[in-house]
Amino acid sequence: MQSDGNQSARAGTPEPSGRQALAALRGSYPEFVPGEVWLVGAGPGDPGLLTLDALAGLLQADVVVHDALVDARVLALARSGAQMQFAGKRGGKPSIAQEDISAQLIALAHGGLRVLRLKGGDPFVFGRGGEEILALAAAGVAFRVVPGVTAGLGGLASACIPATMRGVNQAIILATGHGPDEEGTMDWSALARTRQPIVLYMGLRNLENIASALMRGGLPGSTPAAVIASATLAKQQVLESKLECIASEARAANFAAPAIVVIGDIVHIRRQLLDASAQNAAAPAGGAALPGGSSACGS
Amino acid sequence: MQSDGNQSARAGTPEPSGRQALAALRGSYPEFVPGEVWLVGAGPGDPGLLTLDALAGLLQADVVVHDALVDARVLALARSGAQMQFAGKRGGKPSIAQEDISAQLIALAHGGLRVLRLKGGDPFVFGRGGEEILALAAAGVAFRVVPGVTAGLGGLASACIPATMRGVNQAIILATGHGPDEEGTMDWSALARTRQPIVLYMGLRNLENIASALMRGGLPGSTPAAVIASATLAKQQVLESKLECIASEARAANFAAPAIVVIGDIVHIRRQLLDASAQNAAAPAGGAALPGGSSACGS
Repeated sequence: MQSDGNQSARAGTPEPSGRQALAALRGSYPEFVPGEVWLVGAGPGDPGLLTLDALAGLLQADVVVHDALVDARVLALARSGAQMQFAGKRGGKPSIAQEDISAQLIALAHGGLRVLRLKGGDPFVFGRGGEEILALAAAGVAFRVVPGVTAGLGGLASACIPATMRGVNQAIILATGHGPDEEGTMDWSALARTRQPIVLYMGLRNLENIASALMRGGLPGSTPAAVIASATLAKQQVLESKLECIASEARAANFAAPAIVVIGDIVHIRRQLLDASAQNAAAPAGGAALPGGSSACGS
Repeated sequence: MQSDGNQSARAGTPEPSGRQALAALRGSYPEFVPGEVWLVGAGPGDPGLLTLDALAGLLQADVVVHDALVDARVLALARSGAQMQFAGKRGGKPSIAQEDISAQLIALAHGGLRVLRLKGGDPFVFGRGGEEILALAAAGVAFRVVPGVTAGLGGLASACIPATMRGVNQAIILATGHGPDEEGTMDWSALARTRQPIVLYMGLRNLENIASALMRGGLPGSTPAAVIASATLAKQQVLESKLECIASEARAANFAAPAIVVIGDIVHIRRQLLDASAQNAAAPAGGAALPGGSSACGS
């Protein structure tokens, strides 16, 4: 790979070559102007689910302020001169206050840097991106928002559970299962009465309480439910169960965050796909289709 | 740019060079095996929101079966030898039956081709992707699902409306506003009673009826609402209004499909951002942040 001068030169200056490669693919891409903040979603984990604009941001950023859920292979796509700053929140552990993160983004931008704020999933879906851009706007910092594949929907796809299916559902509800400060305000019974499937983000910790609340709201305990842990990654695990036993089974199987939970009849489609594939020797291609981590409670 | 042999050679063989460029960026990417179908989301429109795996599919596909909502600039990223087939559904016009599309995908795959089924947004969110992979699995065809940025969430971000905001909402509901066969089965009152924001896909045609149903279900007519047409594209238009007048105002302003509608207090955040930016001379960067198409009814 080092056989000619051109390639050696590129190996020595990986950043320009990354941008050249992107330009070869796209023609042009948005310019990251010094003093701007880009608020970017990294998608659910698999680097293949990164968007082209997110990549353009990584290849141009001076500093990348990222959270805990951004995969190391995504961070490795940043230009080698970029400064990497961790500003994550880890469930249960003390973490940097939101105000401090916003203040840090503003200070970096005022210092004339190209600031990439990189979040797992989509920055506007349970990612507190709204708070960050309000702070940026108030401080007079220019910003760009680059949405990403949200973990809930990308995770469902990775487990071969269609978010919507004609004849099954006409809506899908994305909800946060996280934190005591949110619990009191969510009307789980009202969600249950929609009879539409519910995808819980950060859903493991309070799953027992949430499942009970949904059953009190009228959802049958026999409603299909699944947990998808480490969605879209090689270590992805899927547990199929029912609403009434999903919390205890996830605990027994040692499922851990990051995980999404899905509750509703769409979960059945996964089983139909597995059965059809098995009967017809159709092997889904690659890890993104039907990973091996499927579990016990399914059939 | 044509100064050395190496670059000239690449200019003469665009497909391998596209794959080389992708390999330079990512190291490796999933191999598209002949006889496989990849079901891929193209995102909401802007080619920058395409994922790296979607691009890998376009660079390797023998045939691309796409719908009407995939942007021409995305299709242009396919390798030049790829056969392009339109299999779209256009609202109100006769279109190819879903069974015929599935049968066509199966026939192409059985013919040994690499078949890219490319849909706007995410193939599993109101995209009928579930039906297609069930048909593929039943026919013994190997498949891969590549999720995309769904139009509803990407469109909100593009209009600077966070899908979720602490203190405002703990869930977001994605719902289809489309078609007489769905209307009867959706309990709009139950959705209204969740008091969580609702994003309507294909929401313009039945907007008057849906808005009435939501108000009958208890949502105040003063609930903030917005229509985002041609989201993420240069021609994007945003109309801010209230639930009670959004349908008539969208009609008066000649808003047309593709459009998403969002109903809920999160719509206010856009106005807060516009005001904060105006006061502090913060110009959001590029088209993806605060496009000029904002409208009348907002303040």
